[in-house]
Amino acid sequence: MASDLDFYFDFTSPYGYFAAMRIDALAAKYRRAVKWHPILLGVVFKRSGMAPLTTIPMKGGYSLRDFARTARFHGIPYQQPAAFPIATQAAARATLWLQNTVGDSEAIAFAKAVYQAYFADGVDIGEPANLLRIASGLGVDGAALMEGISSPAIKDQLKNEIEQAMLRDVFGSPFIIVEGEPFWGFDRFDQLEAFLKNGTILD
Amino acid sequence: MASDLDFYFDFTSPYGYFAAMRIDALAAKYRRAVKWHPILLGVVFKRSGMAPLTTIPMKGGYSLRDFARTARFHGIPYQQPAAFPIATQAAARATLWLQNTVGDSEAIAFAKAVYQAYFADGVDIGEPANLLRIASGLGVDGAALMEGISSPAIKDQLKNEIEQAMLRDVFGSPFIIVEGEPFWGFDRFDQLEAFLKNGTILD
Repeated sequence: MASDLDFYFDFTSPYGYFAAMRIDALAAKYRRAVKWHPILLGVVFKRSGMAPLTTIPMKGGYSLRDFARTARFHGIPYQQPAAFPIATQAAARATLWLQNTVGDSEAIAFAKAVYQAYFADGVDIGEPANLLRIASGLGVDGAALMEGISSPAIKDQLKNEIEQAMLRDVFGSPFIIVEGEPFWGFDRFDQLEAFLKNGTILD
Repeated sequence: MASDLDFYFDFTSPYGYFAAMRIDALAAKYRRAVKWHPILLGVVFKRSGMAPLTTIPMKGGYSLRDFARTARFHGIPYQQPAAFPIATQAAARATLWLQNTVGDSEAIAFAKAVYQAYFADGVDIGEPANLLRIASGLGVDGAALMEGISSPAIKDQLKNEIEQAMLRDVFGSPFIIVEGEPFWGFDRFDQLEAFLKNGTILD
């Protein structure tokens, strides 16, 4: 089997959400698996000097429009969250904890459910109680999850994961790396698919 | 006939170049005309706080790779210019002068030739002598052009055009506005085409 796709995302990233809704099907079409890597853009932006899209003069209003329009264009349910962007440490740590203690497929199901709760159903995913509810709905032991995400070990693990991502020049969300080839943005899924299909972006 | 497309671009923008190679054909397919508006990203970035892509930590190297890869993906000749990004006042003023004194179609032919010289043929378009040569090749009076682009009137006109663009929240290149709907980036040409075809980005 060919190499996996490394998929980096922040839970407060609309384009990360769109990618999350589509990446497993795209990878499966070309017999690839996906490794899901939650990161925190706030940490990454400190190093790059970049800023959240909606805070940038002139670009902010356009971005809000583009989130909704891109969702419609691709047929993905979308509702701009009232609180945006938000801190997503708890959701990222919960995803890592599930990967560590339950399994990758459960962690992926959780990550997708968290994204949908935030971007389609108006749930505040910055609130740990809401993460617990989502996890419980998937059959995960909520009390164990809450304990897990507040442990120093999981906090260190997330810091380390983000550091590793930045060593690979991951500067945004979504960001996919496969066989050393980096793709930034949901709008590079066409080039990503060409790469998976042909092993190159053909001349 | 339906409204024209307003097409904003900076001559040092690779994605602006890709858009320039494709926008007239796209518009013609839906019986639209295109108004070409040269702008200067340096002026726009002062207001937005944004920076040239290749100067951003981590993102810089990716951007260079994405320019070349996007060109290959779309079958557009591309060679990363040795001097990049550059100041493009002279090229922008020359385009305006051609619009004023010769005609829109000549100005568009000139703009396309300038883009190709810079991004496909390794010509330094920051150098007025090279602009003169390009213009002469299109049958334009080079001496008149050189005089025209150093006039205070054309300098004021460019400043004013950029100010007008920023009043419409044009924050990047390429940027297209049609019937009030804004599209930023060559990677939004799919949504732009859907809009031209259907009058909306359909649900």
